[in-house]
Formats: sequence, C-alpha cells, structure tokens
Amino acid sequence: MNPVKVGICGLGTVGGGTFNVLKRNAAEIARRAGRGIEVVQIASRSAKPQYDTTGVALTSDPFDVVNNPEIDIVVELIGGYDLARELVMRAIENGKHVVTANKALIAVHGNEIFAHARSKGVMVAFEASVAGGIPVIKAIREGLSANRINWVAGIINGTGNFILSEMREKGRTFEDVLAEAQALGYAEADPTFDVEGIDAAHKLTILASIAFGIPLQFDKAFTEGITKLTIADVNYAEQLGYRIKHLGVARRTEQGIELRVHPTLIPEERLIANVNGVMNAVMVNGDAVGSTLYYGAGAGQEPTASAVVADLVDVVRVLTSDPQNRVPHLAFQPDSLSDLPILPISDCESAYYLRIQAKDHPGVLAQVASILSARGINIESIMQKEVEEQDGLVPMILLTHEVKEQKIDDAITALQQLKDIVGEVVRIRVEYLG
Amino acid sequence: MNPVKVGICGLGTVGGGTFNVLKRNAAEIARRAGRGIEVVQIASRSAKPQYDTTGVALTSDPFDVVNNPEIDIVVELIGGYDLARELVMRAIENGKHVVTANKALIAVHGNEIFAHARSKGVMVAFEASVAGGIPVIKAIREGLSANRINWVAGIINGTGNFILSEMREKGRTFEDVLAEAQALGYAEADPTFDVEGIDAAHKLTILASIAFGIPLQFDKAFTEGITKLTIADVNYAEQLGYRIKHLGVARRTEQGIELRVHPTLIPEERLIANVNGVMNAVMVNGDAVGSTLYYGAGAGQEPTASAVVADLVDVVRVLTSDPQNRVPHLAFQPDSLSDLPILPISDCESAYYLRIQAKDHPGVLAQVASILSARGINIESIMQKEVEEQDGLVPMILLTHEVKEQKIDDAITALQQLKDIVGEVVRIRVEYLG
Repeated sequence: MNPVKVGICGLGTVGGGTFNVLKRNAAEIARRAGRGIEVVQIASRSAKPQYDTTGVALTSDPFDVVNNPEIDIVVELIGGYDLARELVMRAIENGKHVVTANKALIAVHGNEIFAHARSKGVMVAFEASVAGGIPVIKAIREGLSANRINWVAGIINGTGNFILSEMREKGRTFEDVLAEAQALGYAEADPTFDVEGIDAAHKLTILASIAFGIPLQFDKAFTEGITKLTIADVNYAEQLGYRIKHLGVARRTEQGIELRVHPTLIPEERLIANVNGVMNAVMVNGDAVGSTLYYGAGAGQEPTASAVVADLVDVVRVLTSDPQNRVPHLAFQPDSLSDLPILPISDCESAYYLRIQAKDHPGVLAQVASILSARGINIESIMQKEVEEQDGLVPMILLTHEVKEQKIDDAITALQQLKDIVGEVVRIRVEYLG
Repeated sequence: MNPVKVGICGLGTVGGGTFNVLKRNAAEIARRAGRGIEVVQIASRSAKPQYDTTGVALTSDPFDVVNNPEIDIVVELIGGYDLARELVMRAIENGKHVVTANKALIAVHGNEIFAHARSKGVMVAFEASVAGGIPVIKAIREGLSANRINWVAGIINGTGNFILSEMREKGRTFEDVLAEAQALGYAEADPTFDVEGIDAAHKLTILASIAFGIPLQFDKAFTEGITKLTIADVNYAEQLGYRIKHLGVARRTEQGIELRVHPTLIPEERLIANVNGVMNAVMVNGDAVGSTLYYGAGAGQEPTASAVVADLVDVVRVLTSDPQNRVPHLAFQPDSLSDLPILPISDCESAYYLRIQAKDHPGVLAQVASILSARGINIESIMQKEVEEQDGLVPMILLTHEVKEQKIDDAITALQQLKDIVGEVVRIRVEYLG
C-alpha cells in the first residue's frame, strides 16, 4: 500500500523532532500503523541544515503545505493563535486531516475547529498539546470512559516545575532559577506564558473539557503564576509536610466546574508531590477507577514528537484498516510480528544484591572479591555489618555492576564452596530504571 | 439508536462491578459512546442478590450467553484457562465481539484467540487484563506508537506489593502479612498465583508482546516469587537507598527479549519505588518519549470494571460512529456537551496556607483566630516561628480546612487591617488529592 503523505508546518524543536522520529522509527511505525508514513513537504521560515530533508519539498510558506493536493495529513507545529488557526481551518476546508501540538490554538479556537472538522469529515488530533509525550488525552477520552470523572490535577508546565524543584532542593530564588532556565533553553526569553500559568491554563482547559464534557472555555480559567513564591514559603510548606507545585486543578462540584491554575501545597507523600525537574504528571480521579496518575516528559523535542507521531499513527490506522482491526491486538500488524527470541534467565543482565553470611575470620572479604573479580563481576558497593550475636556470623552485603546472570550463578556456586561462608548466598536483582 | 446489547459471563467481583458501573454511569457512558449499553443477560453460578438484576435474563450456563443471538458483545469474567477459552472461541465463532479481563487466558491462548477474531471480523479487547483500571495497554499500543520501546517494568500484582509494603513499613514477616492479606480478601486462599509471580508473569507476557511486537510466549517467562524474602534483606536494601518491589521486567537487548518477574531492588528516588500498598504502576521507556509511568489501582471491583467498561465503549464507538469520528474531540458527543458553568475563583473551594507577619505582641493570635472563626474558617494547624532578627516580626503559618475562597478573601482583608499585622498576608491553596 502507498505510504500516507504528510506535510509539516514548522521545523522548530517539535517539527524537527517529529521529522527525526518518523525517519528513525519508520519501519517500526509502519509495522504498527499497517502502512508507511512519508513526509513529502515541510514549511519552515528558515533553513534548518541540521535535518536531512533530502527528497522532501521545502517551502517558506505554510499555506503551500495545507493547499498541497498530494498531502493527506497536515501537522501544524508553528504554535500561536492566528496563523495556526488560519492554516488548520484551511487544511480542514481542503479535506485534510490535522495533527497539532498547539495548546493555545485548541484551548482558544478548538470549538470552532472541531465543528469545522466534523462538517468536513476529517480528523483533528491534538494529544501533544497537553503534557507532551504522556498520552493523557487518550487515557481520559478512551481509557477512563467508564468513569464519572471527579477531578483532574496536573503538573503540566515543565519550566514552572523545574523552577519550583530548584527552589526547594537548592534554596535558590525564583529569579535566580528563571535566569538559569532561560540560559538552558527550558524557558523562553519572555517567560510569561510559563511562569504566569497561561500555558498551564491552556492545557487545563483542554483536560477539563474532555474530563467533564464541557465546551472549551479558556477565558474562564483562573490563573495565578509562581512569580511571587518565596523560599520562605517553600521551606515552611516543607516543615509542614508539603511540597509546593504549580498545579492545574479542574474539579466537578454541584455548582459547576472549578478551573484553576495556581501554586499549591500538596502532601509530600503523594506521588505527584515527588515529580521534579521538567517532568509532568497528571492525576485523574474517577468514580470507578479512583485516582490514577500519568507521568513523563511534558515538553522537549522528541517527547512531544512522540505524541505527534502517535496521533499520526492513529489517523493512519483509521485510513488504512477495517474499523474493527484499527489497532492490532498485539500493537503490531499480525503479519509483521518479530521473531526475537525470549532469552533464558542465564542470558539476562542486571545488577545484583548479594548477601553472604560469613564467619568472622580475616581474609573472607578478599576471597569473595577474588571470586567475583575472576568472573568479571565488578563491585559497586560493599556493606559489612557487625557480628550478629546469635550465630557469630558477619552479614556481608554487596551490590554489583550489571552483568550476565550466568556469571552470578557461577560466582554463587563458588562462594558457597568457601568454608567460611555459611548457608545460602541471597541474590536479588537490581534495576536502576534510569 | 438502539442500545448495544451485552451479555456478561461471571457475576463475581469484576462482573458485579461491571454491572454496577454500567448502570450507575449509563447516561455519562452513552454521552461518550454515542449509544446506550444494555446488559441483557448474565451467567452466574450462584444467585447474587446484592445486584439488582431486574430486567436482565439470568442463567447458570455461560454458553447461553455466548449463543444468545440477541447479544452483540460478550464480556468474559469467569477467569481461568479452559472454560474461558471455550466460551471466548464460541462467542467469536458466533460473530460476537469479546471483552475480557482474563490475563491467564490472553497470555496463554491469546495468539489463537486473536487469529480466530481476525478471521471472523470481530473485536477482542483486554485492557482489564493488565494493571486493572490503569489504561496501560492503550498507552503502549496507541499512545506510544511512535517509539521503539526499550523496556517495560511494572508493579503489576497488588497482593505482592501490599505484602512487600507492609514488610518494609512495619517490619512484619512475609507469612504474617500474607495471612492478613488473606483475611482482608486481598489474597486468595491459595495465594500461589500472586506470591509466586505467575499472575504478574501473565501480565508481563502481554505487555512485552504489545511493546515489542512479539507473539505471546508465557511459557518462556522467568518467574521468581517473593516467598523467600526476609526482613533482613528489606532492611539492608533500605540502608543502601533501595526499595524491594516484585517487578515484572521486559527489556529489548541485541540478543533478544528479557522477560522476567522477580523481587527487585529499585533506587528509592524513583517514583515507582514509592508505589505502595495494593497499587500498581507500569513504567514504559521509549526511544523518543523517554520514561513514562502509569499508576493506579491494579485490581478491585470497580477499578477493574473501569477498564472492562472502557473496552465496551471502545467497541461501541466502532459499531456506532464513522471511523473518523470514533472518539469525539472532547470525549463526549458534540450534541451532548454539558452546560455546567465554570465557577469564578471566589466560589471555588480548597484548603489554604496563610502566612502572616505579625508584631511580637500578646493577643495577635487571638485576633487572627477570631477573624477566621467569625467567617466559619476552621484552622487545621498553626506554626508560630521565632522572632525574626531583622525586623522583629513573628511569622505565623496557618493551614485551614476546606472553605470557599470568598471567605478567605474576606478574612485576609480583615487581617490586613489589624495594626499588629505587617505587609501582605501570603495565601497559597492546598490540595490533598487523596
């Protein structure tokens, strides 16, 4: 089957990421979508030599893309309100499906755009507009569709969360961290959208609409920024057992919907209170499921591209498959499953925790170290405890670097033959999940 | 449009939850699905008077359900391998769509079931089979479809996680906690599937297949239980900065796929290391998105029903809508959006953190308390700090109970008129997210 033809408007951070991911993972994506996805045209204001656009038509005018009769799906990644709106409406008018990462566009013009798309029978997908690579729109619209949703609460601006995390962890002032975030490229030269909560309010507006089934009403969101937060309050909150996060909260009450973005104290034992740095997380509470949480990178080149490309796959699956086979059972088309073998545990690799009960004799540690070393097992750390009163044995705890399980098996066999080691060596695998 | 007709096999915990959720949230679910969902028949081995099944045909023979020509979708909730397989294959043969929560069935017989479903053009959905109410199958199959997935790691057995959490938090032995879990109904009388990791291996087998595009191969999963874990190792791990979790890990390597369930040390700063009690969480690491995490209740009556009913909505959306309108933009059908108002911030309700700078005079606290009390604002806690050296002022920090914002606005206005209070009262909202 011919590949689906895609045009991208905007080759900035997210546009470049989208282009790269489509290219790098082309085979894997086609195995999932049932069809290839080909970028045939890109509109960019300036040349971007860092992307290899060989074979792709380039233009400086994004209207060339939305008017290109060859293109099936337009990806809008220029951001902002007016031009983006005009492009998306024209693309829909031209019968093209649209994928966008533009939260401002959806929060402010979404009602109009969706109505137009329905009238023309095209799809508009916008997963990347909220929380970057975290598929939280899909989770709420589809995964939690059984629930009467009670509330949604999210850390949905990475810049703001980076600033608050640094203030708490390092005792730095708001101004100081903001300057660094700007230097690192996390924050814009004009940081208003991030630090005043406007960006978060755009995203919260979208989340509230899909959670409660209400039209998009960005103008009614209450927004308070983090610019006035002081170290003093961060510290007092900590002493009381709380963390301060810039939270978007949408809650259903009997009187109506609360829709508000503001600094918020959260009990430190909540998982979401421990989401730090530029990471995002969204909690969704439903009457059947209770509280759920979705965590990941809420911005950045490839995390946002991950959501854009997932939306492309969603559209392509609709264009390509029978509706009842839209998503293959095992995610990949049945005729393209991989025959990668499942490894036996002896060929698996991880780090290890070993606990050895040794007699309190000199030289045991040297014997242990020598057995490990002979098998190429590197020791990350050793903890030797006091002699235990009952049995006169010394517990010795080792953490190893990552190594094949077979080597640990061999080492344990050898260790258990040492006369100064008593009982079985305890072995527990270690995963860093970094 | 006529409602879609559903038959449920099994009225145990999950079956009862599914029936209740479909009934309680019928209106909201129909607004999302575009069509009502009606349970017309239930098969149950025994009478279950706790469910009001008025108007529903009851039978003790589940084959009555799968052979009922009136039924569009069969929900298989009897569990186990053989009878479930026979029922599901028969339902497919009869041209019915199938929703199941049965991880054992999918992990062991999924390849055969999916092939049969494709040949008959019917849908088989199984979101509830992994991690209960957390829509992690949807996240991987659709939300992360742009990624080459590197690894998946999950706490996917609530009973096991409850036992490990209690061992760590309370220093209890495995045997002691298991006995309590059995008494509480978290663990079965025969706990083998949970504590030996078989249940987790079923789920991990499914996750690995959808992550890497490999056939289901439960028989090749490595499984080690938690029965031999000792308090000593839990404590030593803690001293080294780790938590021990019963983790399912599926990792792509150059040689093949690692597929293993075992107790695992995880650095305590990882979010997943802080998932306690019966809760589940799954981390998915993709080459574009990086690490993401999905958290929620992995078992229980209504959380599991949440996933079963979401699958029903997925199927009904395909049966009801044009493919390009399958999921409404705002989750609910455009003609059924709600006109619930967005509340002004003065009508919103939360708890509050207030910081007041007061002169070090007697009686200030009484004045503050009286202003709050007069407005019906209850104080949760007060922290009064030492006199600050620079200005001779005493910072006074209060946490209030939940109250309308208008009352806090009034109180702050009154507080700022007190002559012993200097500067602005700092107000930060508090959310418990419990």
